[in-house]
Order: sequence, then structure tokens, then C-alpha cells
Amino acid sequence: MSRYRVAVHVAPRRGLLDPQGKAVADALHSLGFGGVADVHVGRYLVLDVDARDETEARAETGRMCAQLLANPVTEDFEIASVSRP
Amino acid sequence: MSRYRVAVHVAPRRGLLDPQGKAVADALHSLGFGGVADVHVGRYLVLDVDARDETEARAETGRMCAQLLANPVTEDFEIASVSRP
Repeated sequence: MSRYRVAVHVAPRRGLLDPQGKAVADALHSLGFGGVADVHVGRYLVLDVDARDETEARAETGRMCAQLLANPVTEDFEIASVSRP
Repeated sequence: MSRYRVAVHVAPRRGLLDPQGKAVADALHSLGFGGVADVHVGRYLVLDVDARDETEARAETGRMCAQLLANPVTEDFEIASVSRP
């Protein structure tokens, strides 16, 4: 077994309402950042996973996302990277 | 001016307490994911920014992180990618 560091992005599905992103965009405009057109806020998870190989680490992390880490109705997830810590 | 899509990772500084990550790790263990050693939970922000070029889009986003998006005491941020939407 080896340890893998898996980074995951979980983001609100495009097209769905993202009130947190809207609030951040409004706050940035108030601070003078007028060039900001749109903001989406999601979660960035970094998991240290013990697995036989990188393929297994990816598959196991995908199952974690489907069961707990992402809301399948409103969010999309993607495995951003897998590396050795 | 062109529009750039800038992705940002904001994560609790390594070594600082991450209670949300601890809670997620415990929940994953309860679900039977025994191979998970450690979890860190941060934010994943995707900003659509109007700027003259990619360098300006990066610099402007860095200023947004320093002023609003990241807590400079407890969090680290990194610009993960810049692309054209």
C-alpha cells in the first residue's frame, strides 16, 4: 500500500443558483474590483489515501465523492490531481 | 479587455487545526473508507475576471485573495489555473 494525495474540486453545478458566489462577487465589487464578472464558490478537498496504486486511489476517492463529499443533485466533482505526499 | 477564468485554492495552513477536515475524515471512516489517513477542506473559487492579459488577471486575483478571499492568518491561497472561458 502506498499513500497518495488526492485533490478534489466540488463545485455548484453551472446554471444552478450560487448565492455564496453572488455574495462574494458583490463584496469584490464593493472593494473596487470592478473587473469581476462572475464568481463560483465550491470546496477544495485534499485527501491522503492509502491504496495499492494511483488508479485505486482515484476510484476510491470517486466513491467518497459520490457517497459523502459532493451533493449529487446540486454539485459536480472532479479529481484535480493525484500525487505522492 | 479579455475575460479570463481564474481558479483559486484556499486551504487551511498545514499544521493548523482543521476541524472540518477532521470531521470529514471521521465520517469517511464511519462509511467504511478505512484507507483515508487525513483530509483537509478548503475553498475552490472560480472567478471570471476582465483584464488586459493573463498576467493582469493573475495579479488582480492575488489582490482579491489578500483582501477578501483568504484569511491571511490561517489560510494559504494559490492560483490553480487561468484559462479562457
